Amino acid sequence: MAYKVAHRGKVPPFIAMEVLRHANERAAAGHDVLHLEIGQPGSGAPRTVIEAAHRALDQETLGYTEALGLPVLRQRIARHYAEAYRAALDWKRVVITTGSSGGFLLAFLSAFDAGDRIALASPGYPAYRNILTALGLEPVELEVGPEHRFQPTPELLSRLKHPPDGLIVASPSNPCGTMLDRAHFEALLRYCRAHGIRVVSDEIYHGITYGTAATSATELEPEAIVINSFSKYYAMTGWRLGWMVVPASLLRSVESLAQNLFVSPQALPQHAARVAFDAKPELDAKVAHYAENRALLLRELPKAGFDRLAPADGAFYLFADIGHLTNDSTSFCEQMLDQTGVAATPGVDFDPARGHRFLRFSFAGSSEHIAAAARRLVAWRR
Amino acid sequence: MAYKVAHRGKVPPFIAMEVLRHANERAAAGHDVLHLEIGQPGSGAPRTVIEAAHRALDQETLGYTEALGLPVLRQRIARHYAEAYRAALDWKRVVITTGSSGGFLLAFLSAFDAGDRIALASPGYPAYRNILTALGLEPVELEVGPEHRFQPTPELLSRLKHPPDGLIVASPSNPCGTMLDRAHFEALLRYCRAHGIRVVSDEIYHGITYGTAATSATELEPEAIVINSFSKYYAMTGWRLGWMVVPASLLRSVESLAQNLFVSPQALPQHAARVAFDAKPELDAKVAHYAENRALLLRELPKAGFDRLAPADGAFYLFADIGHLTNDSTSFCEQMLDQTGVAATPGVDFDPARGHRFLRFSFAGSSEHIAAAARRLVAWRR
Repeated sequence: MAYKVAHRGKVPPFIAMEVLRHANERAAAGHDVLHLEIGQPGSGAPRTVIEAAHRALDQETLGYTEALGLPVLRQRIARHYAEAYRAALDWKRVVITTGSSGGFLLAFLSAFDAGDRIALASPGYPAYRNILTALGLEPVELEVGPEHRFQPTPELLSRLKHPPDGLIVASPSNPCGTMLDRAHFEALLRYCRAHGIRVVSDEIYHGITYGTAATSATELEPEAIVINSFSKYYAMTGWRLGWMVVPASLLRSVESLAQNLFVSPQALPQHAARVAFDAKPELDAKVAHYAENRALLLRELPKAGFDRLAPADGAFYLFADIGHLTNDSTSFCEQMLDQTGVAATPGVDFDPARGHRFLRFSFAGSSEHIAAAARRLVAWRR
Repeated sequence: MAYKVAHRGKVPPFIAMEVLRHANERAAAGHDVLHLEIGQPGSGAPRTVIEAAHRALDQETLGYTEALGLPVLRQRIARHYAEAYRAALDWKRVVITTGSSGGFLLAFLSAFDAGDRIALASPGYPAYRNILTALGLEPVELEVGPEHRFQPTPELLSRLKHPPDGLIVASPSNPCGTMLDRAHFEALLRYCRAHGIRVVSDEIYHGITYGTAATSATELEPEAIVINSFSKYYAMTGWRLGWMVVPASLLRSVESLAQNLFVSPQALPQHAARVAFDAKPELDAKVAHYAENRALLLRELPKAGFDRLAPADGAFYLFADIGHLTNDSTSFCEQMLDQTGVAATPGVDFDPARGHRFLRFSFAGSSEHIAAAARRLVAWRR
């Protein structure tokens, strides 16, 4: 008899990762490639984290930790909320995860049942939609644009026939980089509280902002699930370590799910990550570097015709409306890679309905690469 | 409005991890504890793996790898199948995962849709059942006992009203340690093929056997999904690195799911694990040590009244029928921990229906601990 392939496994690929592979193949074939497709800091973990990892390799057995993570790391993260947000947080609500990815799985499975409807901004991080679908949840896309600063609003939620069961918020957002200021965030959370909508706040880009610091849902709403990670500000992508702040009502579910789904987060990164919070000077220097890249692209990209850019309040992305240049961003990105060596991610990754006229540049890479990319794009579109 | 807590998030805890936490609390309170509750090698990764990790920390940026893992590691694993099983395997079918746990998620989501029925032996690894439930799949428990060597059989499957959509096999099994010999494995796979039952073969205890080497489903059935890990034979539990062998028909689904659910496996363990396959002498010495522990317990435990033990062909567990001692293995284990300091896992973790009269001893720990545990148990039950 024939074996079936599950319908729910047929989620779309994460296109940024596909572009990365194509770009790598191109590089392997001897062509040079400038990587503006992937949201990954060009430099690695802070020096002190590397040193702590060397020490842990020599001194620890690196067995399973408790499923919720090493208490000493959970406590350090709770202290980070006091330091960075002036928010008191019981460390037992902090849960260590396998990147933010592990956090989303635990959040969605603990808070929502199959068939539940989860609202999220479109454009948005594609894995939200694809994880939701794989878990039998229904993504309810809120079409946002420049008029909403690409963020969900109470008004957009109120237009839905029924209130959704959940809402995913990301400020700063990927791919747009836009933020909800404190007043708008409060209004959104108030609306959600009034309608029993559980908020999942993706705060992975906190720390990477170019004006006002980001507000955490932890400051405003004890029933929000907060997702964060060491991947972006802390520049530890490949370490796959993240954390959640979990409402007390969900903690027991999250713990049981974590025990069964993951057994435990990885030991070595947990031992090493603790010192990341004390590496602020080194990490803020990385943010200053992103800010320079951002300023350079904001100056140069319009000369190449990319002049409709979402306001990048934070994160390290510029989301460009290229509707005046193409109606097929996937082909456009392929041509651009072929003709200039500059890799970028087509907007369809983030917005299946309207992304054909958008693309995303990441400016997390080295200054030389970003500057070279800008030069080539200006020459290409001239 | 009140927020709901998802029904599907209310999976049972992984009791072995709960016992670990209680045992740790007892130890923190100044009591000594002998850990026979957790399936974790007492010693850590091979020396060469630690050295490779030090090198990778210094030389690599440790960013995202491809979602399916570093090709060089996938290729090394494919070579392992040639060396250990004489099985030719296309390295592109090897997928690196976040422990075997990550492999189960990818396997279940790619092969099965919500509502599908998955057969599995009971007693068995509790996370199978709990992950299946969390993903909306229906575990179909095959009650196995000494008469089946605690393994599923075609006959047990044929007794089900309808053939299930999938079958999970584990040889050596957890908690029983029993194995399917090649002929029985072939017969089981033949039955499954004839009835379109997709087999998921958990081979995490391969390499830890005390007589015949284990047979891999990879040798016999290209449509089987094989799950393995660096946690047990390779003694790298806390590194959370595993792999799958994926049928060609599921590879695209697994890749898309992996991109969305995990982005990428952890970079550092991938760089380090490659050399684990060349650490056979060091790893086989660990197995020799488990064999000594096993022999000691097989000799001493009957003196303490634990004389109904499943035949431990492999893995590092003794599953004991204690029906003549208690009808409540949870209380029994608590008392045993209180009165002797020996931690073991009650059978209800592995078999909700009949586990109240079983418990599992793990003999993965140090010789001193195992010997001390045996002495205390003999004194206790005398």
